Amino acid sequence: MSQPQTAITPTREQDFPEWYQQVVRAADLAENSDVRGCMVIKPWGYGIWENMQRALDGMFKATGHKNAYFPLFIPLSYLAKEAAHVEGFAKECAVVTHHRLESDGKGGLRPAPAAQLAEPLVVRPTSETIIGATYAKWVQSYRDLPILINQWANVVRWEMRPRVFLRTTEFLWQEGHTAHETEKEAREETMQMLRVYETFARDWLALPVFTGEKSAGERFPGAVETLCIEAMVQDRKAIQAGTSHFLGQNFAKASEIQFISRENKHEYAWTTSWGVSTRLVGTVIMAHGDDDGVILPPRVAPEQIVIIPITPKPEMRDTVLPACDALAAELRKQTFSGEPVRVHVDKRDLGGGVKSWEWIKKGVPVRVEIGLRDLEKGSVAVARRDRGHKEKTFPATGDFTSGIAALLQEIHDSLLDRATKLRDAHTVKLETKEDFVAFFTAKNPNKPEIHGGFASAHWDGSAETEAEIKEQLKVTIRCIPFDAPHEDGKCVWSGKPSARRVIFAKSY
Amino acid sequence: MSQPQTAITPTREQDFPEWYQQVVRAADLAENSDVRGCMVIKPWGYGIWENMQRALDGMFKATGHKNAYFPLFIPLSYLAKEAAHVEGFAKECAVVTHHRLESDGKGGLRPAPAAQLAEPLVVRPTSETIIGATYAKWVQSYRDLPILINQWANVVRWEMRPRVFLRTTEFLWQEGHTAHETEKEAREETMQMLRVYETFARDWLALPVFTGEKSAGERFPGAVETLCIEAMVQDRKAIQAGTSHFLGQNFAKASEIQFISRENKHEYAWTTSWGVSTRLVGTVIMAHGDDDGVILPPRVAPEQIVIIPITPKPEMRDTVLPACDALAAELRKQTFSGEPVRVHVDKRDLGGGVKSWEWIKKGVPVRVEIGLRDLEKGSVAVARRDRGHKEKTFPATGDFTSGIAALLQEIHDSLLDRATKLRDAHTVKLETKEDFVAFFTAKNPNKPEIHGGFASAHWDGSAETEAEIKEQLKVTIRCIPFDAPHEDGKCVWSGKPSARRVIFAKSY
Repeated sequence: MSQPQTAITPTREQDFPEWYQQVVRAADLAENSDVRGCMVIKPWGYGIWENMQRALDGMFKATGHKNAYFPLFIPLSYLAKEAAHVEGFAKECAVVTHHRLESDGKGGLRPAPAAQLAEPLVVRPTSETIIGATYAKWVQSYRDLPILINQWANVVRWEMRPRVFLRTTEFLWQEGHTAHETEKEAREETMQMLRVYETFARDWLALPVFTGEKSAGERFPGAVETLCIEAMVQDRKAIQAGTSHFLGQNFAKASEIQFISRENKHEYAWTTSWGVSTRLVGTVIMAHGDDDGVILPPRVAPEQIVIIPITPKPEMRDTVLPACDALAAELRKQTFSGEPVRVHVDKRDLGGGVKSWEWIKKGVPVRVEIGLRDLEKGSVAVARRDRGHKEKTFPATGDFTSGIAALLQEIHDSLLDRATKLRDAHTVKLETKEDFVAFFTAKNPNKPEIHGGFASAHWDGSAETEAEIKEQLKVTIRCIPFDAPHEDGKCVWSGKPSARRVIFAKSY
Repeated sequence: MSQPQTAITPTREQDFPEWYQQVVRAADLAENSDVRGCMVIKPWGYGIWENMQRALDGMFKATGHKNAYFPLFIPLSYLAKEAAHVEGFAKECAVVTHHRLESDGKGGLRPAPAAQLAEPLVVRPTSETIIGATYAKWVQSYRDLPILINQWANVVRWEMRPRVFLRTTEFLWQEGHTAHETEKEAREETMQMLRVYETFARDWLALPVFTGEKSAGERFPGAVETLCIEAMVQDRKAIQAGTSHFLGQNFAKASEIQFISRENKHEYAWTTSWGVSTRLVGTVIMAHGDDDGVILPPRVAPEQIVIIPITPKPEMRDTVLPACDALAAELRKQTFSGEPVRVHVDKRDLGGGVKSWEWIKKGVPVRVEIGLRDLEKGSVAVARRDRGHKEKTFPATGDFTSGIAALLQEIHDSLLDRATKLRDAHTVKLETKEDFVAFFTAKNPNKPEIHGGFASAHWDGSAETEAEIKEQLKVTIRCIPFDAPHEDGKCVWSGKPSARRVIFAKSY
């Protein structure tokens, strides 16, 4: 049987994890560095992250937050205090023990023994403790509240099995940290930021997500409540794409964030934290990519349109290139999503086919080809990345330009629609343990094949059941959906009574 | 003798270093953290940095650069290789030696001995080595050049005497790293980026700077040529505000960045690097601030205008507040420097005087007060931060709104003019050693008083003379100005022949 020819080998169906690695490479998004677990984010990958940042930053500011910056290093004693308070505290951290290098006498360098730190410093895995210690100084009275701050930063969590973008030792993220006078206000903030993430995922990344609460077993250590957005990618696994934590007064107590209330009493503040990271880039690739490479939602694509001059003979360049530049200039006058349309004219001295395949693999939403014949006809050849690579339309140039925002929106909508259909097709109500086990069991255990999906099933609410399922099937409760109605049923695993369904899945 | 009343104690004249600390505190820009040498950049300070970043980022992109991201950690062996190549390699680094914490059995934590790294990692003090190793993989042929990349990142250099913004263990910066086919192209890039910095300093920060080359003794270790912008601040010391390095083939040789040339030969690439950091925030404060606090150049001010409702009686709020909001809305429709004007309405339940002083200390360029009387007259009370705090004008509201961009530009121009006059008044041609020593010697050595400035003087070009001056006076050659004409003279220190003047100063 002949294989359909695709730009990426293997295909998603053949080997999804390997397909992902190959797509990242083919699109020039990122690569592994010589530092185990740390990636180099290349310009195309970083451009996606920059667009995500800009959009999120605007949404954070529109909801009253300001950015600030806290130290990279956290004194070991801060984490020791947290570890004493918090079960499940993660200990895989990069630890700084020396502050100077010296010659090792053999032509190399070593940490200078004389420059050993009295107290080791930990490279922040998250900034709760150092921000908590800072807020404790800032907050005296209820008048100092709320504090609504976000930080864009790098964080480090030592990873034994790194996977580019999805799980890396160093990654980039934002972490919001807020402190409030009342529980109600803090809970509202937690929910507000989850809704910001949900909106961002839908409107910018074309990702439909389940929103809900984490079970106790999956909560952020120390949180009272962890809310999350969960996306399904094309191997039908879940990716936790963003979290928003209501921390109650737990962290305020650990950090002594106390204030004099309106009633003139000493009270602990109510805090929240919320974050998304560069794993969103990996999520977008896994959710939308096809066997030809990345497919970028237009709002986060570093370039939304690429214009490829078709000049089989060198002398055609003088006519075709200026026409391409003129079209680019017209397109840049158009706006999409409040910003000028991003257009690139690929003038490299390479064949049109080579260039076209490169941009297909990189996932640019719209490719335009212009040759002499197109100029004569006053039209352009347009290909959409969300359609097959041979499918083209030939609109008049003016119509194409004036319709570009609508076209980009149409592409966004089609990606969202496709991802929604995939998710809905593989979100299945299951009632019996037998069906549940079958759903999550690969037919060929030697092959990382695509199977399963999201199981909407009853759970008895016990940690024991949750732990058993995780151990036996590597399946976890992704969330208890906000919109899950009360429904009497029996736990799919234990058969015990249950009041509502939760979402089970394998996950990254 | 009675002191003039100012918001900041001490005044600049009384104790400039302490004035600086107090201004940073009064404006809520930043504070020291519990991690020695690491600062917390508070929202007002970070907002200034964000505006700087946005402007610079646009200028980098307009000159063809793209952003990327490289690992925080650098293998020790990379630095060992560099140290072998480079004299003056800085060894004050944070060194990561462990990747896990464990309980110390006494309720605390310690680095887990079993998790010691085979090779220590250094927190990047700058990214030349790891970027060089990466470029070596990316570059095969001349077709892969140029590489024009910038990184926004945090870096760490252990500081024994930290000073907020100006010299901190961790700081934020950008580092451009480019690789080129030819020496000429790399030299042009080095100069182009210096000109970007010069333009940015003048047009965004209202800072006049000297541009020129560093002497060999002041060069970045390993560079062939270091170009710099040098600003004078109000204690007449110099601050190196940005550098652009032509690295020749030195780093390419150390990192093996080789390519097949057009002539089909193996050649080493020509590289550059260039950077500015959060020290620019400190420079702006020291250059423009007065005895009432910070004065922000309008283009980098987080808020350009603050509107203060004057409502001595609570019942006035219903009339005055909506009028303030309406004015803010009108102002936001105006643009300055290509962006909507940034306006804040301060509705807090505090007296107008208290609020006014707070914004004076924070350095907001324009303060507007609106009370019932102003509404009746259809005018507003306007105070400029670059003028005395009692000086007000009372334009008609419409005139104020339509003239806001011109007013902000006028404030920018007046700050630049003032800084230029200060610099020119204290840049002095000196001919004799006696005058030179007197110029740089405090009249009262027990008091960190303001004295000296920039000396434009002849230098014999020798490292010995440079070192002697540095040792005896703590004065360094800030730059050999680009525009210094050929001029026969005698070295101000040694009396030996010299062909041109250089700029000497004390510096931060």
